[in-house]
Amino acid sequence: MRIDAVDFFYLSMPEVTLEADGSQDALLVRVAGDNGVVGWGECEASPLTSIAAFVTPRSHGVCRPVADSVLGETIDGPEDITRITAQVQRNSMDLLQAAHTFSGVEMALWDLLGRTREQPAWSLLGYASSHGKQPYASMLFGETPEETRVNVLSAVERGFRAVKVGWEGFGAGHAASDADHLAAAREGLGDDGVLLVDAGQIWIEDVAAASERIESLEQNHVTWLEEPFLADSYKAYAQLAARGRTLRLAGGEGAHNARMALNLIDYGRIGYVQIDCGRIGGLGPAKQVADYAVGAGVVYVNHTFTSHLALSASLQPFAGLENHRICEYPAEPKQLAIDMTVNALRPDQNGLVFAPDAPGLGIEVSTAAIATYGVPVRIEVGGAEVFSSGPSVFA
Amino acid sequence: MRIDAVDFFYLSMPEVTLEADGSQDALLVRVAGDNGVVGWGECEASPLTSIAAFVTPRSHGVCRPVADSVLGETIDGPEDITRITAQVQRNSMDLLQAAHTFSGVEMALWDLLGRTREQPAWSLLGYASSHGKQPYASMLFGETPEETRVNVLSAVERGFRAVKVGWEGFGAGHAASDADHLAAAREGLGDDGVLLVDAGQIWIEDVAAASERIESLEQNHVTWLEEPFLADSYKAYAQLAARGRTLRLAGGEGAHNARMALNLIDYGRIGYVQIDCGRIGGLGPAKQVADYAVGAGVVYVNHTFTSHLALSASLQPFAGLENHRICEYPAEPKQLAIDMTVNALRPDQNGLVFAPDAPGLGIEVSTAAIATYGVPVRIEVGGAEVFSSGPSVFA
Repeated sequence: MRIDAVDFFYLSMPEVTLEADGSQDALLVRVAGDNGVVGWGECEASPLTSIAAFVTPRSHGVCRPVADSVLGETIDGPEDITRITAQVQRNSMDLLQAAHTFSGVEMALWDLLGRTREQPAWSLLGYASSHGKQPYASMLFGETPEETRVNVLSAVERGFRAVKVGWEGFGAGHAASDADHLAAAREGLGDDGVLLVDAGQIWIEDVAAASERIESLEQNHVTWLEEPFLADSYKAYAQLAARGRTLRLAGGEGAHNARMALNLIDYGRIGYVQIDCGRIGGLGPAKQVADYAVGAGVVYVNHTFTSHLALSASLQPFAGLENHRICEYPAEPKQLAIDMTVNALRPDQNGLVFAPDAPGLGIEVSTAAIATYGVPVRIEVGGAEVFSSGPSVFA
Repeated sequence: MRIDAVDFFYLSMPEVTLEADGSQDALLVRVAGDNGVVGWGECEASPLTSIAAFVTPRSHGVCRPVADSVLGETIDGPEDITRITAQVQRNSMDLLQAAHTFSGVEMALWDLLGRTREQPAWSLLGYASSHGKQPYASMLFGETPEETRVNVLSAVERGFRAVKVGWEGFGAGHAASDADHLAAAREGLGDDGVLLVDAGQIWIEDVAAASERIESLEQNHVTWLEEPFLADSYKAYAQLAARGRTLRLAGGEGAHNARMALNLIDYGRIGYVQIDCGRIGGLGPAKQVADYAVGAGVVYVNHTFTSHLALSASLQPFAGLENHRICEYPAEPKQLAIDMTVNALRPDQNGLVFAPDAPGLGIEVSTAAIATYGVPVRIEVGGAEVFSSGPSVFA
């Protein structure tokens, strides 16, 4: 089929705060084939900037808008999505934001292709079946250890047996204070739950500062320490990895192409590679990372903090990997992220979450939510309108 | 002084073609201090997308517009620019385009600080003097070897003793055809000129395809082969580097932070690291790379294909490195890039180019050129105007 249209929908909560919560806004992408079928995807993040990278006038031969490599293209199978990905990589080489923009488009292409063929995306990616994953709740540290304990306990009460805590003050103050928060998190979770910690790049490249936390992380049986450093700081990652006894490192959400994630495995010595399909360029590059992780003995995990559309997309690339069991699950998303989809991926009776056995990504987008949360955007360049997504588009 | 305003000016040639020529448009940045002084910088590339990253509504705490980390800040010395850089890195962690946007802003901050203190930027960066560089002309391969020979000869006739040829068909066809072009380039240049080749990432990660060209590259005494692979493909770089006898690899223009360039040195085994101050985040990160290159025995080179404002900025980070002698010099820029500045950096009687011994970047921007080439941009989000750079701004 031919790709006839790509439309973007910028959704936002009425108020967007400074908390580290990526579910406060969203950029939905709808791709329409000339067969009458549509597919949906979601970019992460900065909706306006990602829209601009799709519609911007070209700067030169390899700084072209993402639109140039997508509109009018034909997709009849997965290999066509791979081909379009290579085109974007080439034609938008000098357009940094292109990877984030294309991520949502690429997702939508798998959804479109899957719906056309009545086949799940994970099947199109080459997997024979979709295995259940243990969801972990992603939460922010509390302001006090007690608040952290209560937060984690609330996740346990909702059925989670794995919890990740992160951000807020963690890592920025004294190691002793961090240790109190970790002990509180373990207390809230109980002895047998899986505890994960996200440092949110707080130590930049400071291996010594990160190392001061190893003892309390290991004492509290933390499975992984996530993003201790900047996404590209492989040496710091490798040095810290060598200092842990049981602790392993996790990272990769910052990767905006497959190679960056592979480098973090090879040079950074991480034990868990976390991929956000809304940033890495979609499902295809994520599957490449999953394949590589299997060979390298590293565990693949999704990175998802937003909607169940993004969640489904992020589960597809490792749906068939039975031994890569843990998955990030948005535990406290904003109402926008909840309302955005008609259906959701709920844990089954065993507490496991599955990439759905349904065509494409298997998620229905709520047009009502688009109408409720839609933010009109209008861009004019040289006196001509290059983008408009106003109320009429939402009708 | 306090940063009172940051303004963007999108300039473009009337027609932007698909050739690999980055001088067809430009994004100028003007930063105004509350002391009445202004500084100028230039982002590379995709003006609309880079503007969007400055003005976009925030998505969450670490996906904030670049404006949030710059406007209203105080700069009294280089350490304040470093501090603002760290703020952007943190606050815009998940906004991919931020690095390209901030690059032009950061340049303008050095210009502003230098003009305020009446001190060249290279002096603010810690250098005692500015050493002359041998400019090389950057050109595209011709369609035929004869055209390549004539192109290179034209540069020689204009006084260049170093020429880089690249892009167009190079690397995409047969190795024998590439060899013909290389021989023609060497013939046009003469035996004693410095010949450089830019492959423009054409082989993606295919080390074998690149290796087929080593013999002809070495026979024609090519000093470096630039960007054979994707910017992050360190393994491919290292494998190819190991296969060359005299040939060294060059790369780094794709780096959008210092760490990426350092990784290319450490893991990719390049011999020349090429930094575009309009992409890496400005002069500060570039200086970090220059310092590291000195320690690693790697030669630092600027990457510049646009205006003399960008050229001056790109010379500053290695102005004081006497033994890092070669510099990229836009040889055939579009008229826009020529008209954009009132003064230009011409080679002296010895054919050497200098980072100017003048306050800031030492380049005067032409307001007439802004009026001639200015492209009005207007962005509305949620019914409110978030950016407007129309004819009145250019008046």
